Amino acid sequence: MIKYFKADPWKVIEEGFNPEMNEIAESVFSIGNGMMGQRANLEESYSGKSLQGTYVGGVYYPDKTRVGWWKNGYPEYFAKVINSTYWSGLRIWINKELVDIQEATVNSFYRELDMHNGLLYRKCNITLKNGISVDIESTRFYSLINKEYSALRYKITPNTACEIKIENYVDADVSNKDSNYDEKFWEEIKQESTENKLFVTVKTKKLNWHLCTGVKFFLFSGDDEISSIPTHSQHPKFANSIYTVNANGGQTITAVKHAISASSFHHPIESLELHTKKTLEKMAASTFESHLDMSAKAWQEKWKSSDVEIEGDVEAQQAVRFNIYQLNQTYCGDDPRLNIGPKGYTGEKYGGSTYWDTEAYCLPFYLATSDPAISKQLLVYRYKQLDKAIENAEKLGFKNGAALYPMVTMNGEECHNEWEITFEEIHRNGAIAYAIHNYIEHTGDKAYLAEGGFEVLLGIARFWSQRVHWSQNFGRYEMHGVTGPNEYENNVNNNWYTSYIACWCMMYAAESVEYLQSNYPSEFSNIIKKTNFNIGMETEKWNHINENMYLPYDENQKVFVQHDGFMNKELIPCDELAPSERPINQKWSWDRILRSVYIKQADVLQGLYFFEDQFDMNTHKRNFEFYEQFTVHESSLSPCVHSILAAKIGFTEKAYEMYLRTARLDLDNYNNDTEDGLHITSMAGSYLSIVQGFGGLRIKNQSLYLDPHCPEQWHGYKFRILFKNSPVSISVNHSGTSVQNHGESEIEVHFKQQRILIKAGGVVNL
Amino acid sequence: MIKYFKADPWKVIEEGFNPEMNEIAESVFSIGNGMMGQRANLEESYSGKSLQGTYVGGVYYPDKTRVGWWKNGYPEYFAKVINSTYWSGLRIWINKELVDIQEATVNSFYRELDMHNGLLYRKCNITLKNGISVDIESTRFYSLINKEYSALRYKITPNTACEIKIENYVDADVSNKDSNYDEKFWEEIKQESTENKLFVTVKTKKLNWHLCTGVKFFLFSGDDEISSIPTHSQHPKFANSIYTVNANGGQTITAVKHAISASSFHHPIESLELHTKKTLEKMAASTFESHLDMSAKAWQEKWKSSDVEIEGDVEAQQAVRFNIYQLNQTYCGDDPRLNIGPKGYTGEKYGGSTYWDTEAYCLPFYLATSDPAISKQLLVYRYKQLDKAIENAEKLGFKNGAALYPMVTMNGEECHNEWEITFEEIHRNGAIAYAIHNYIEHTGDKAYLAEGGFEVLLGIARFWSQRVHWSQNFGRYEMHGVTGPNEYENNVNNNWYTSYIACWCMMYAAESVEYLQSNYPSEFSNIIKKTNFNIGMETEKWNHINENMYLPYDENQKVFVQHDGFMNKELIPCDELAPSERPINQKWSWDRILRSVYIKQADVLQGLYFFEDQFDMNTHKRNFEFYEQFTVHESSLSPCVHSILAAKIGFTEKAYEMYLRTARLDLDNYNNDTEDGLHITSMAGSYLSIVQGFGGLRIKNQSLYLDPHCPEQWHGYKFRILFKNSPVSISVNHSGTSVQNHGESEIEVHFKQQRILIKAGGVVNL
Repeated sequence: MIKYFKADPWKVIEEGFNPEMNEIAESVFSIGNGMMGQRANLEESYSGKSLQGTYVGGVYYPDKTRVGWWKNGYPEYFAKVINSTYWSGLRIWINKELVDIQEATVNSFYRELDMHNGLLYRKCNITLKNGISVDIESTRFYSLINKEYSALRYKITPNTACEIKIENYVDADVSNKDSNYDEKFWEEIKQESTENKLFVTVKTKKLNWHLCTGVKFFLFSGDDEISSIPTHSQHPKFANSIYTVNANGGQTITAVKHAISASSFHHPIESLELHTKKTLEKMAASTFESHLDMSAKAWQEKWKSSDVEIEGDVEAQQAVRFNIYQLNQTYCGDDPRLNIGPKGYTGEKYGGSTYWDTEAYCLPFYLATSDPAISKQLLVYRYKQLDKAIENAEKLGFKNGAALYPMVTMNGEECHNEWEITFEEIHRNGAIAYAIHNYIEHTGDKAYLAEGGFEVLLGIARFWSQRVHWSQNFGRYEMHGVTGPNEYENNVNNNWYTSYIACWCMMYAAESVEYLQSNYPSEFSNIIKKTNFNIGMETEKWNHINENMYLPYDENQKVFVQHDGFMNKELIPCDELAPSERPINQKWSWDRILRSVYIKQADVLQGLYFFEDQFDMNTHKRNFEFYEQFTVHESSLSPCVHSILAAKIGFTEKAYEMYLRTARLDLDNYNNDTEDGLHITSMAGSYLSIVQGFGGLRIKNQSLYLDPHCPEQWHGYKFRILFKNSPVSISVNHSGTSVQNHGESEIEVHFKQQRILIKAGGVVNL
Repeated sequence: MIKYFKADPWKVIEEGFNPEMNEIAESVFSIGNGMMGQRANLEESYSGKSLQGTYVGGVYYPDKTRVGWWKNGYPEYFAKVINSTYWSGLRIWINKELVDIQEATVNSFYRELDMHNGLLYRKCNITLKNGISVDIESTRFYSLINKEYSALRYKITPNTACEIKIENYVDADVSNKDSNYDEKFWEEIKQESTENKLFVTVKTKKLNWHLCTGVKFFLFSGDDEISSIPTHSQHPKFANSIYTVNANGGQTITAVKHAISASSFHHPIESLELHTKKTLEKMAASTFESHLDMSAKAWQEKWKSSDVEIEGDVEAQQAVRFNIYQLNQTYCGDDPRLNIGPKGYTGEKYGGSTYWDTEAYCLPFYLATSDPAISKQLLVYRYKQLDKAIENAEKLGFKNGAALYPMVTMNGEECHNEWEITFEEIHRNGAIAYAIHNYIEHTGDKAYLAEGGFEVLLGIARFWSQRVHWSQNFGRYEMHGVTGPNEYENNVNNNWYTSYIACWCMMYAAESVEYLQSNYPSEFSNIIKKTNFNIGMETEKWNHINENMYLPYDENQKVFVQHDGFMNKELIPCDELAPSERPINQKWSWDRILRSVYIKQADVLQGLYFFEDQFDMNTHKRNFEFYEQFTVHESSLSPCVHSILAAKIGFTEKAYEMYLRTARLDLDNYNNDTEDGLHITSMAGSYLSIVQGFGGLRIKNQSLYLDPHCPEQWHGYKFRILFKNSPVSISVNHSGTSVQNHGESEIEVHFKQQRILIKAGGVVNL
């Protein structure tokens, strides 16, 4: 852990330049707009350590996998988010000396991520080896309005008269750090350099993704455009224009790059270039400032329904906004084919864009803060991939439309490659069904069941009904060979969480059958035909399984048993482990981790969190106390569930301790890996720790429930959500809670045991 | 399966040339001498599919491993047997046309492996495109006398006058098919071509193994040496000499290559070249024929103590001799640093040279057929690697001299790389201890305990005593997270076999303590000092574990339970599986295999086999019947244990069925992978099926026990073993058994319930 960035309620600030922190800063200062994004690579040349990253949503590469011993059913490839055309680069020579901070003397350096307005700003002063000092000031953003547009304004002010040579370029000859076999993934299609416009079109070596990047470039001296004829040079997958201007001491030369990055993910290949050119022309007709202003306003709008304010702790304030900001720039619900990659648009590590994190952690964030349409896209994403999930299950020997969603995916196909995960960590299927339930609870949009939701539920229920087996010797259904959310156990039998959610899925599917029969008879009869659904036989089987499923329970401890054999372990709480032994995933060999009692992330407790109302408070307490003592929280997704449950059962100190473990994970580089990119999905967890945890917020059956606690360490906190299309703010401090309805219709709030109505514009203090 | 090779009691015969069978034939016709060996690559050029393979014992390469996700404790490399300098190649041009069977018309082709004499012979007639027909006759062998010497005699007889150009070469610029990253492993040191001698010295890129290969070449016309001055050409890692001779129609030109391959495994690098030159000079001073004759006599000697004769089934006869032949050419006990690679000197697949196969399957073969000194080398091998086994255990968190031998190794370090195998398939440690017991039972050489055996036992006992844990809830020791011999289960708890052999190891170590205290007090006190052995405390712990170890047992079936949860499975016998579902390792995904009841190879039954006298006949029967029904035998090592147990309990038909599954595995290419090399270690299994199975042979406490059965399909069979330094032959047919003592002292034989004494040279009919 390192406290490097300066605290500020709305900004992340870096003061002074530290080459060894550059890759971490590149991650933290990433910007994006939900459709594309970029690491904070310095615009001018930089010879120090840097991970260049420019990412375009939906475009991926099927990299060859790397496995020790192949096993039947392993995927052939590992879909990777790939580094793509770099549009924001400039090369600058002052009196023929290349500007490179690594080689210059840095007199001052200031960089900020302005989260309120969604922009990256930098100002620095450096002295070159030739003695000339220059001020550099750059502002960069990805537009929230036109999602293919990004722009850069870059100002250079030398302290003495000099010749400034500026190379504006677009470079698609980029590499991927995470490539398994050091391949480059892009091939050249076309480059064009005409006057102040550059276009580079490339395609991926496999899958034929096309990407056309166009840049229109302007140079100003003060407010006056400089009309200078550039020269061009030739390189593969690259276009440039080189300008030479003479500047006086103190004269500011401003470069502006308007960029369009358009891909065949959204456009037919034939019209991609034309589309790029037209859009670029249109966008470049307005100023950088006017685009920035519109985008900033859109960011401010987002904050109205998603902000969390914390009083009395500026670091916590900065952290929670950083997390919200990153989530909003990773996913905006623009396209049902996009999802929330674990590193968002901030790095290339981990293949695929979709894990069960999306349903289990991220969806509740978007449900609470955004229009339901945005969350719905995440559901539609899975619906569109149902065919692939059925194919995936078929590969593993399942039949009759059973669906197994992949552990990691880009297009619906599995692209992870460890058997204990892909074949066995099947609880992910449960989270996907649960998300449908969660969405309907929030929004009341039960029609979604007829639109696609039920088909997903059916595929999942069918999978579970085939995945269990009847144990003749014990007269019950069991489920063997699974890996629960706690990946520190592999290939176990009767994982309580997995078996519980499996039964829940089958019962929810059965319940949905009844609903559809009554409410959407004609749509439902189409679904029955399409899916060959034998209602009687299949629901009967589901019921039989549900009634006869083995769910391990320990009579002594009166807790659910994580899986068979858990109680036979050496039950030593993690507090008794020497600090030198932790984190165990760095200190212990894998077998030792597996046979130990230690839990990586909530497993039984994940089930209590999802299905909280099905258990009484004592059950919550007993299970929390039993499992918390063995949980090492070595997943960034772990502490939030513990924090929420601890808050629920009144362990506020524990809840706060757990909250602290994720809130500044990336800002303070807790896991020593921020340079690879940010932990986007776990950011949702730290949001939920506040809103669901301390705030006790739940939305069930379209009603809002609150049960707030204020951590002692804070004066108070306030969060804004979007509830039934009304922004609602909830302020909590040590003397009480105040709920304000910013919307235009009355809302109903359940506060602890009370039911309260709040008029449009009204405030209630509780 | 394909019946391609012709049956013959002493030979493997190929008639006619089939390019698509060439790689399979290359494997089957491999020759070697326990120190080095070679696939049957055609000597002249061949443009068809071929896997070139020349292997030198002890020389290996640490290839970079390939894993999906790295886990703590994974080895850095995967030691591979590597293809080395090719000494036997010739390139021949007749009237400037290159001789290449693939391009010529093959008029006749005959190849045989003469197992009785240990040589590879080929005779063929081909017509070149230029119309000239030639007879080719080649004879090749690896000497059993000088283990660095191999030789080739190659005869060419054209049917018409022509110019024959012969390039004699030595080529170290070879590649490895099994390289993970397509690397070549050898680097050039020196080449030399002088008159009729060629020398190439190379070293491995890593580990600095040096290999010097020298060849002395002679050309004859009839019996007359041709003195022709060769030319030479330059290539990296290569040396050659090119001769041009004119031959008349019907005139035979004979090329003879004497080769020495000497490595830094046996010689100091400084003297390697000199040694090679001297040895080559000495060997080439005698004729090819005289060396062949001496080597053939040594082979005949080997057969005297290891032959198995089968009457009434020539295919079975050929098969068992093929298996014995391959075992003897893979390992002769020359060096305690050599071991028995799973492919011997016949292919490069699978890294490492040593698996638990050595102790569990191969050692009993060598114990029965060879001088005890040869078997002892296999024990010394492990003793020499004890330090590495201790290091290996330390890496996994064990302490105080606990030793975990690797799953696969070359030099004592682990070089497999799947966690479920390296970290968990720890029963291998048990087989290594068992081998010491087995050796002492055969030979009575209890002194070996003091020489090194006990140190190995101590390391292993210490490992087990740390690997179990006390389950407070159940008041017993358990062992979690293991993989038994049945690799179709991974990461299970309380595998009966592993826990049983673990207890046995600790008890055997404790028993050895008492023996050493009484018999080798001074040696033992040195061992105590060296190993920091706390006799009282440690043996007490071993006893406590042994008394309180959980060994799962099913009260209903009255069988040992393979591991926790086995009885909860869907218990469907494999007979009820559709043939289209088998082999399951090709038809099913890995998770389905894991949660199924199906067993890859003997697991509980492996324990019954090792510790047979500790269980009564009913226990044997019940467990055999219970587990056999679920066993799919998808390991080449599986059927032999079942065969031996079936014979023991009187299921002779089942025993024969099981025997058939391994006997001709490679000859008939059952597993469709003979082209990669032969399954050397499972060849021991098919030998044991006859000798221990049908013959009921056991040697316990240096006494010979027999309980023979004759399969109905055979008229009879006879096997020869070496017992207390006396060759003994046992003939079994449907009317009785005859035992002949070919040795010089009286032996005692336990025949069923009788105790019989047989004089030197005597025969007893029973």
